[in-house]
Amino acid sequence: MISRFPNLFLRPSMISRFPNLFLKYRGAAVRNHRFHHRPLSPPLALTMPDFRPPEHQVAGHRASANKLGPLIDGSGLFYKPLQAGDRGEHELAFYEAFSTHAAVPARIRDTFFPRFHGTRLLPTESRPGEPHPHLVLDDLLAGLEAPCVVDIKIGAITWPPSSPTPYVAKCLAKDRGTTSVLLGFRVSGVRVVGPGGTVWRTERPEVKALDTAGVRRVLRRYVSSVADEGMDCALATAVYGGKGGVLSQLRELKAWFEEQTLFHFYSASILLGYDASAVAASGGEGGVRVKLVDFAHVAEGDGVIDHNFLGGLCSLIKFISDIVPEIPETQPLGPS
Amino acid sequence: MISRFPNLFLRPSMISRFPNLFLKYRGAAVRNHRFHHRPLSPPLALTMPDFRPPEHQVAGHRASANKLGPLIDGSGLFYKPLQAGDRGEHELAFYEAFSTHAAVPARIRDTFFPRFHGTRLLPTESRPGEPHPHLVLDDLLAGLEAPCVVDIKIGAITWPPSSPTPYVAKCLAKDRGTTSVLLGFRVSGVRVVGPGGTVWRTERPEVKALDTAGVRRVLRRYVSSVADEGMDCALATAVYGGKGGVLSQLRELKAWFEEQTLFHFYSASILLGYDASAVAASGGEGGVRVKLVDFAHVAEGDGVIDHNFLGGLCSLIKFISDIVPEIPETQPLGPS
Repeated sequence: MISRFPNLFLRPSMISRFPNLFLKYRGAAVRNHRFHHRPLSPPLALTMPDFRPPEHQVAGHRASANKLGPLIDGSGLFYKPLQAGDRGEHELAFYEAFSTHAAVPARIRDTFFPRFHGTRLLPTESRPGEPHPHLVLDDLLAGLEAPCVVDIKIGAITWPPSSPTPYVAKCLAKDRGTTSVLLGFRVSGVRVVGPGGTVWRTERPEVKALDTAGVRRVLRRYVSSVADEGMDCALATAVYGGKGGVLSQLRELKAWFEEQTLFHFYSASILLGYDASAVAASGGEGGVRVKLVDFAHVAEGDGVIDHNFLGGLCSLIKFISDIVPEIPETQPLGPS
Repeated sequence: MISRFPNLFLRPSMISRFPNLFLKYRGAAVRNHRFHHRPLSPPLALTMPDFRPPEHQVAGHRASANKLGPLIDGSGLFYKPLQAGDRGEHELAFYEAFSTHAAVPARIRDTFFPRFHGTRLLPTESRPGEPHPHLVLDDLLAGLEAPCVVDIKIGAITWPPSSPTPYVAKCLAKDRGTTSVLLGFRVSGVRVVGPGGTVWRTERPEVKALDTAGVRRVLRRYVSSVADEGMDCALATAVYGGKGGVLSQLRELKAWFEEQTLFHFYSASILLGYDASAVAASGGEGGVRVKLVDFAHVAEGDGVIDHNFLGGLCSLIKFISDIVPEIPETQPLGPS
């Protein structure tokens, strides 16, 4: 149980690039949290629910017999293995700080972030005797019959400013080699369910090679209802536009980022999701979801806004608003 | 005349990191512009007006007997020597493209940019036989009796994405060594005129060493009416707040940056200016000016917003709005 995650279990204190994050936001009970991973509760251990890799995963390591990767259990929960080294600890610390932080508006937390349900040790296929700690989160695409998802890593800079130079150099090469520096974001993966259940998804080498034109194509393909490479943008208005659509949600998120100085979300992603079946059926509301994920490199804001995330978010908003013709916002009804 | 500026005069075609900038926006006449610097007109050459380094210069090379630097002539014009190598050509090309670009709103051009009056060859003290080409621009602080100015370089990234790796490494070291990466901007220089005409200004080593707290201090000192290091922020409401104040102008600029995809302003600065005498006299309007300057590293936007400048601008807005208590905007009067 120790070998895979030595830092988490052996070190006397949490070590992090951002120690203040822990000191400021985590109480003593939370600081010791790592010693209290809930094991599988007896009924769960006995019945061993149907843990499986989510079909809708489009980025990151995929779980297999030899590899750790996220799992879902069919009940609406998503289990993300703690990453090795500081990253896992750091993401856990973020979720703990964020989920109880008094200055985070409930509306923002509930709308734009996965709900955090603590951690759980899960057995792993490759090392049966070594259960691995997982973050337990909401499955963001639970309940969608035909989940369509795009993962977009936000920010021209993907490394926290305090990172050591070799790490900066490594990230910078990726950021310049993809669209991150140029656009302020890059697409990490896409999955679209078309008519008849056909699935169109990007492969990793392809997605890494996307240029500006490729990003535009992918964002159009994501809202197209076709069985092949074609693009009709038939769902653009339903998914991107309108009340509750992607643009409206991104603009609400932007307003928060113009003010919030608590966290800087380096290397985090925005996950867009919708239900192709629901959109096709209703022609309107399609369970559109806009969520932030991947918090292994979050830094404390220290009174400064996250200009890097905000800039990338504004760029994404512009890209999407170029796809869907702007629907003029209706004037709110109020007492006349 | 050739030795100091070989590129400008010898090369058969403009060479630039961003050749499209020239191809798209510059007509044939403009492309040949470099062969047609207006020499001093005879009356000017005869009378030789009082060219002198501007007292209010706070960043960049200062003109002296041995060094080229900007000059003013007392008639409201500002002469900026073309920088060596590609930079000078590039800044000239930007001014020519920008000043005639049909997609730039006149209000934005007139409010936030120095007016461009072409180029002029001026004799230099150090090499009397070698006149040097200068950009002729509006002196942004002309007419202010007691000009107070702060120069703020905007953007966490100060290098155009297509820059060669060694240049990126050099810029990145500066950007990480100053507040650029952390805050999305850095202060390059400040000059404040206090009661009785006392001048407080930052020295270069001091300004380079500013951290987040130092930036907050300088932005407070800039609107303080004191004769020493003290800070009373007495002018914060007059200069930063209110209609026509810095915040209001920065927000108008921000709205343009959320939409404009023509130019990316790497390593450009926002210059804030006001007249300490006018503010003291009227208690209100103080000739507040918000201007962009330094365009040697502008890149073409190619349909993408300048998320890097926009993010830094939003961060600056937040810093300044933390200093002046927000004055609620009045509802615009319209037909009921």
